[in-house]
Amino acid sequence: MSTSTDESTSITESMHRVGRAARGAGRELARSSTGARDRALEAMAARIEERAEAIAAANAEDLAAAREAGLEASLVERMELTPGRIQAMADGLREIAALPDPVGAVRELAARPSGIQVGRMRVPLGVIGIIYESRPNVTADAAGLCVKSGNAAILRGGSEAIRANRAIAECVQAGLEDAGLPAEAVQVVATTDRDAVGALIRMPEWVDVIVPRGGKSLVARIAAEAQVPVIKHLEGVCHVYLDDDADPDKAVAIAVNAKTQRLGTCNTMETLLVAAGAAERILPEAAERLTAAGIELRGCPRTRERVPQAVAASDADWATEYLGPILAVRVVDGLDAALEHIAQYSSGHTEAIVTDSYTKAQRFLREVDSSSVMVNASTRFADGHEYGLGAEIGISTDKLHARGPVGLEGLTTEKYIVLGDGHIRS
Amino acid sequence: MSTSTDESTSITESMHRVGRAARGAGRELARSSTGARDRALEAMAARIEERAEAIAAANAEDLAAAREAGLEASLVERMELTPGRIQAMADGLREIAALPDPVGAVRELAARPSGIQVGRMRVPLGVIGIIYESRPNVTADAAGLCVKSGNAAILRGGSEAIRANRAIAECVQAGLEDAGLPAEAVQVVATTDRDAVGALIRMPEWVDVIVPRGGKSLVARIAAEAQVPVIKHLEGVCHVYLDDDADPDKAVAIAVNAKTQRLGTCNTMETLLVAAGAAERILPEAAERLTAAGIELRGCPRTRERVPQAVAASDADWATEYLGPILAVRVVDGLDAALEHIAQYSSGHTEAIVTDSYTKAQRFLREVDSSSVMVNASTRFADGHEYGLGAEIGISTDKLHARGPVGLEGLTTEKYIVLGDGHIRS
Repeated sequence: MSTSTDESTSITESMHRVGRAARGAGRELARSSTGARDRALEAMAARIEERAEAIAAANAEDLAAAREAGLEASLVERMELTPGRIQAMADGLREIAALPDPVGAVRELAARPSGIQVGRMRVPLGVIGIIYESRPNVTADAAGLCVKSGNAAILRGGSEAIRANRAIAECVQAGLEDAGLPAEAVQVVATTDRDAVGALIRMPEWVDVIVPRGGKSLVARIAAEAQVPVIKHLEGVCHVYLDDDADPDKAVAIAVNAKTQRLGTCNTMETLLVAAGAAERILPEAAERLTAAGIELRGCPRTRERVPQAVAASDADWATEYLGPILAVRVVDGLDAALEHIAQYSSGHTEAIVTDSYTKAQRFLREVDSSSVMVNASTRFADGHEYGLGAEIGISTDKLHARGPVGLEGLTTEKYIVLGDGHIRS
Repeated sequence: MSTSTDESTSITESMHRVGRAARGAGRELARSSTGARDRALEAMAARIEERAEAIAAANAEDLAAAREAGLEASLVERMELTPGRIQAMADGLREIAALPDPVGAVRELAARPSGIQVGRMRVPLGVIGIIYESRPNVTADAAGLCVKSGNAAILRGGSEAIRANRAIAECVQAGLEDAGLPAEAVQVVATTDRDAVGALIRMPEWVDVIVPRGGKSLVARIAAEAQVPVIKHLEGVCHVYLDDDADPDKAVAIAVNAKTQRLGTCNTMETLLVAAGAAERILPEAAERLTAAGIELRGCPRTRERVPQAVAASDADWATEYLGPILAVRVVDGLDAALEHIAQYSSGHTEAIVTDSYTKAQRFLREVDSSSVMVNASTRFADGHEYGLGAEIGISTDKLHARGPVGLEGLTTEKYIVLGDGHIRS
């Protein structure tokens, strides 16, 4: 027992050392030039290309250990760094380098009646802690996004990928030094000790925000225990509502795409709502195409009248994120009932209406309280790249600070700046 | 014991009923028109004017009870609603009504390569819980800001002001109904039971954000215990740095104003930093004027060489928010040392530099990590009205979501909107 306590104390101490170093490096990064940070990202990419074989070898060791430990084959597959995936990390860093620098932009600088000028300047958050699971390419992506936005990063990847994470971290740190920036700006927590996460999320003096990337239970646990703000993604129970005034072809195409284009993503439709007035025209064909694509349909009684292959949905189905080949289907009286259903069951991620009614489109856009609200488009578009953010650190289902896909801007904040000429308040 | 548990359960249940009603009213408010919400604010103001005598009478009862309970005279004074203060509440509501509506604004709507149009729409947060201490005018101000920004509000004022708070709440609810909006959009928690606060901050399903207004210990406790995001103001250990290149007249005027214009506000200077190269030119006169204004000076050794009336500062002085007639003074080597001191001791509220050096002004603006950073202006300008926000619900010392003075925008968030024409993802 005493050994365990000692170890835990020493983990906490070592995490505080990491945090203190990150704080100092973050200050240095915040005052660095855009050019230096971009050069660092380019250098990281070059280092990854140079050391691609070493990274692959470290990854091979991780994979062997994971297989030996009996890790699920699908998880092992996700961890694998093929030559293409290693190149993609380098390419991703260069893409981030090419994005506009969010830091230092000043908006709305204007004179006030007192004579002072007041505006808002975009600045880095400071130190960002990122906790993620098995995919080691997150190490490079997250490092790139944090450094680009002037933040120091503390990265805590999954223990099963630790060798690859360390190899990538060496490239990242070498790239920082190549550009004259402190290596401590990106630190990978090199221990597999689980207490490291507990310490990382409880150091508000050194860490400004935590971004957990992983399954819902990991994220919920971190959010509950953290003593710093958390930018979190919980789940996507996404809806498509096919309105009375929907064009049938667009309705069917969007419903099928939103469910089947990829099954396991957070922006995949999980419940299809169909207006009663459109059910006859649209539902049978949509259902047939979904069934043909291998989707199991779980319907309300009115759905099952028109879709014989649908099994009965239970109340739990309306709240379920399947992340797989199952879809809940409900016939609703119209827009009001659809809005009511969404307000009750949506996780606030992404909802879409298909309609040609201007009025109903406007009401849906305004009244649905989700991070992305769409008209006549597939929910699968809810994504940082599709939105033009260039890259995303995650998708937030929170309302405050960052909502929806989180790009560079979500890793920054604004402070007020005041320019005077000896002004005093009277 | 069992009685207390029963009571506590019933408080929790009754707070959940309040929360559920607020959620419903918030949805109705979010889809209401700007005009309806503005009419509600105007009607609240009219109701307050109509019922000014009843409000004053309720307040008189609160004051009598407070005096009887032995409440400090200064606190009793703050609670008092003079005819002028009652009129100021009505005027404040009309001023908020006249502000631009933040809700519904769409920015950066632009086409993406896929053909979808993506933009961001500003929307209410939903339900805002506000916890405040004795001043009953906060009831009207907070109600006005929340309704204007399309949010429902749950207000929990100090128990010592409960009669006035109830009287004001009646006017607010009558005003909502006059405009055809639900009275439940603003609910005042009418119990003095302290468990009500505990319940309010632990209902993430009904409350989107908590804004505590009060002393540091109240705010810190709420932030530690809340299960919803908190927009919080902790403290203002504000600095003014008089640089080598400062104009002496501006330097002295700003230092004196920042400390003495009001002593007890969060944007009052608490530490004066003076560059060694400017100490001889500026410090004696600044010190003399501060001493003449009744300020006790606590100085570092180099300060005391030039300012004989200064007593010795301890390390604790650098971190203290005096909120009174005391000022810590430190001579530093120059800008780098000033930045270092500020990074170590500032609470991140407001800092100012006085300098005529372009380069040093730019460095200070960029490198100081505080909610307001000023050049050649008094820290006392850090205020929602001075910044043109029109009104403020508080000043945030957090970095995420809202930083510095929080006006209507801080009570809203943005969601992504996507406009397609049958677009699917390929």
